[in-house]
Amino acid sequence: MQTIQTINELKQIIELNKDKTIGFVPTMGYLHEGHLALLTKARIDNDIVVASIFVNPAQFGPNEDLDRYPRDIESDTQLATDAGVDVLFVPSAKEMYPFESGISIGVGNLSTKLCGESRPGHFDGVLKVITKLFNLVQPTKAYFGQKDAQQLAIIETFVNAYNFPVEIVRVQTVRELDGLAKSSRNVFLSEQERLEAVHLYKALQLATETWEKTNDLPAAIAKGKEHIESNTSGKIDYLEALSYPTLQSVTDDTKEVLFATAVFFEKARLIDNILKEKKDV
Amino acid sequence: MQTIQTINELKQIIELNKDKTIGFVPTMGYLHEGHLALLTKARIDNDIVVASIFVNPAQFGPNEDLDRYPRDIESDTQLATDAGVDVLFVPSAKEMYPFESGISIGVGNLSTKLCGESRPGHFDGVLKVITKLFNLVQPTKAYFGQKDAQQLAIIETFVNAYNFPVEIVRVQTVRELDGLAKSSRNVFLSEQERLEAVHLYKALQLATETWEKTNDLPAAIAKGKEHIESNTSGKIDYLEALSYPTLQSVTDDTKEVLFATAVFFEKARLIDNILKEKKDV
Repeated sequence: MQTIQTINELKQIIELNKDKTIGFVPTMGYLHEGHLALLTKARIDNDIVVASIFVNPAQFGPNEDLDRYPRDIESDTQLATDAGVDVLFVPSAKEMYPFESGISIGVGNLSTKLCGESRPGHFDGVLKVITKLFNLVQPTKAYFGQKDAQQLAIIETFVNAYNFPVEIVRVQTVRELDGLAKSSRNVFLSEQERLEAVHLYKALQLATETWEKTNDLPAAIAKGKEHIESNTSGKIDYLEALSYPTLQSVTDDTKEVLFATAVFFEKARLIDNILKEKKDV
Repeated sequence: MQTIQTINELKQIIELNKDKTIGFVPTMGYLHEGHLALLTKARIDNDIVVASIFVNPAQFGPNEDLDRYPRDIESDTQLATDAGVDVLFVPSAKEMYPFESGISIGVGNLSTKLCGESRPGHFDGVLKVITKLFNLVQPTKAYFGQKDAQQLAIIETFVNAYNFPVEIVRVQTVRELDGLAKSSRNVFLSEQERLEAVHLYKALQLATETWEKTNDLPAAIAKGKEHIESNTSGKIDYLEALSYPTLQSVTDDTKEVLFATAVFFEKARLIDNILKEKKDV
């Protein structure tokens, strides 16, 4: 595996591999089994696998955890090597953003719900770096986890609306044995919070089951929220059910329903979701 | 030459020509010698030449001339064929914008001066369609006229900041024998206005000469404006001198100075510019 820091090196490698299929896995590092699932899928599907590690300042708000976002480049390098990555791109912020152009991408409606509401500008920053990375890597396929469902919906919509020549591949959320979704931010949980954190997923399961049984969405949401409140010390940011991928209220036309939640713990805000097909009543 | 209307056809052709260099000339049609200069350059530089004709609704304001923008697809087809274009892409608005994603590109600072001031949203719409076209055509090089200097500055900055894998080639403004810059909108001029219109270029020449002689920018601008007011029935939108390509006020650090003007005539708003190196004093 080649680890590179500069855009020029990356461009040279991409130019040399023009005829090959390129699988791309963009990450913020601190790799866990969730990332490895993306890398494994990319390895199976493509001639070349490029992964990036970049804790993108543009997607962090002024009061968010940019500075203390967990980093471990040694472990990441080992894990990426073992997963069969060919090129690991680890640019600095200055390499990625050498000057301020003033030109921005605005996500609009898709960012008014869920995480977008409490993280203004977050998804704008995600599309900024994704545009740059897609243009640099020119991947055949790019791999994203279902765990960041809103991010996935926004990237799928963006690629579709702006005709980026890449196929977006969704990969299922990888979970701990007790059901907690794998996340780099889980390390910030206290021992007690770690035990409680499993109830995000349990609450979502309870909500989807209630909905499937009763078709009563408000009741299902209420049940889920109540479960988190009764079983954790966390503060609910949201627990909602929205149409996927439009992220609007569920209507008769909705085909897939996203049940998603975000909960603030002392030092970590965790998210999780379940995507369900809507059955005709 | 193949003329195609759909994105699917375009994608197939691009896929088949992956190994070739592709020169791309995006236009709004009603081709004149200015466009032909772009096509000729593209023809010399590349294996394949793709041109597009699309009067992009996203870059027209509600009170602008979208509906009456001149069109002549028969003449354009002939001219493009003669210029050696391989693929002419002529999509409908519905083909380009099948749904509203809500995701937008905001140009920011670069659009607050010159044409951006009187055409709010115009350059956002330009970057929207350019992003789509670049992603679809995946050109090696794309050709733009120096006549639309602000557009060129914005596209160069955008490509640079967002790492689009394309080289932007600037092509000099083509002029009528008397000096008027070629433009599709010239057909809207009355006979009298056509005679007057040459004074846009003359005013810019006068301004740059004055500046080069006196180094007095405000005096140079005043002289240019006065020339247009004395010699045309048009209403000046702006006549300004700005740093290029940042489009900010000229400072000691400025390397190139853009003298640009826009003038409203009865049924046409014309633009022109001269780009000058700034000599150290």
